[in-house]
Amino acid sequence: MTNITNITFSELKVGDCSHLSHQVTESDIRLFAASSGDNNPVHLDAEYASHTRFGHTIAHGMYSGVLISRVLGTQFPGPGTIYLSQSLNFCAPVLPNDTLTILLEVVALSDHKPVATLSCQITNQDEVVVCKGESVVLVPTEKQTVAMPPLPAFTEVDH
Amino acid sequence: MTNITNITFSELKVGDCSHLSHQVTESDIRLFAASSGDNNPVHLDAEYASHTRFGHTIAHGMYSGVLISRVLGTQFPGPGTIYLSQSLNFCAPVLPNDTLTILLEVVALSDHKPVATLSCQITNQDEVVVCKGESVVLVPTEKQTVAMPPLPAFTEVDH
Repeated sequence: MTNITNITFSELKVGDCSHLSHQVTESDIRLFAASSGDNNPVHLDAEYASHTRFGHTIAHGMYSGVLISRVLGTQFPGPGTIYLSQSLNFCAPVLPNDTLTILLEVVALSDHKPVATLSCQITNQDEVVVCKGESVVLVPTEKQTVAMPPLPAFTEVDH
Repeated sequence: MTNITNITFSELKVGDCSHLSHQVTESDIRLFAASSGDNNPVHLDAEYASHTRFGHTIAHGMYSGVLISRVLGTQFPGPGTIYLSQSLNFCAPVLPNDTLTILLEVVALSDHKPVATLSCQITNQDEVVVCKGESVVLVPTEKQTVAMPPLPAFTEVDH
């Protein structure tokens, strides 16, 4: 297990940032399809997708949202964070093998409650913005160092 | 393969609805963790989660978003739909074994473009709203019946 220490509300300042880089694989897309139940062929069928406006299979739009939620839950602010709301604008398609950079920045802190608003921007390796939005979270007020469980490991099997 | 016929913009009317029911399993939560990379222990570690405000492991908030995107991509409007934006308000925790009902309703249709705005509401078996928000999508203008690929099947393996 890896230990992760969260960031508390009193430690956060407007302008604080966190980022994560992730290269999207075909396997990520297939795992997301299984997790979501979304088997739209634009994500899974290369022949179908080649005839769409994208010319290629693309990742599910909501996969970008999932990566934002990963940053919130695992690193910034991390354990103890409660998700209140999220907005997402899907600006450009994400293709297999794209390397995404997910950047979160604190843009507002409530005066009354331990609530932070963070801007979210996801860019690809060509610096094209593929998704942007805003997260609102209840930030932990108590410092904690948490043993993060290993990520469950899944392997694809034949039907 | 199952064939799915999409709904075109000219067929949509304000007030049209679609829904999906889904019982959330522990396996869904573990698969989402693997797909997202989010191993926050509140989702995976029963002992840790028992000491949180929830008293139990909970599903990732963004799993609700994923279920909304599934409805858009697979049934309403279905194949050919392009995701433009999504807002999500996480209102209550989702626990393993909760049966969720995802309801989408058309609330606005653009006069100028084939763009629909849909309200989204997810309720659990006790009729508690766990998530609500709004989707904006580019709706297909051409009718198509599409062979939906089988959902990829994954099985959990030991590390």
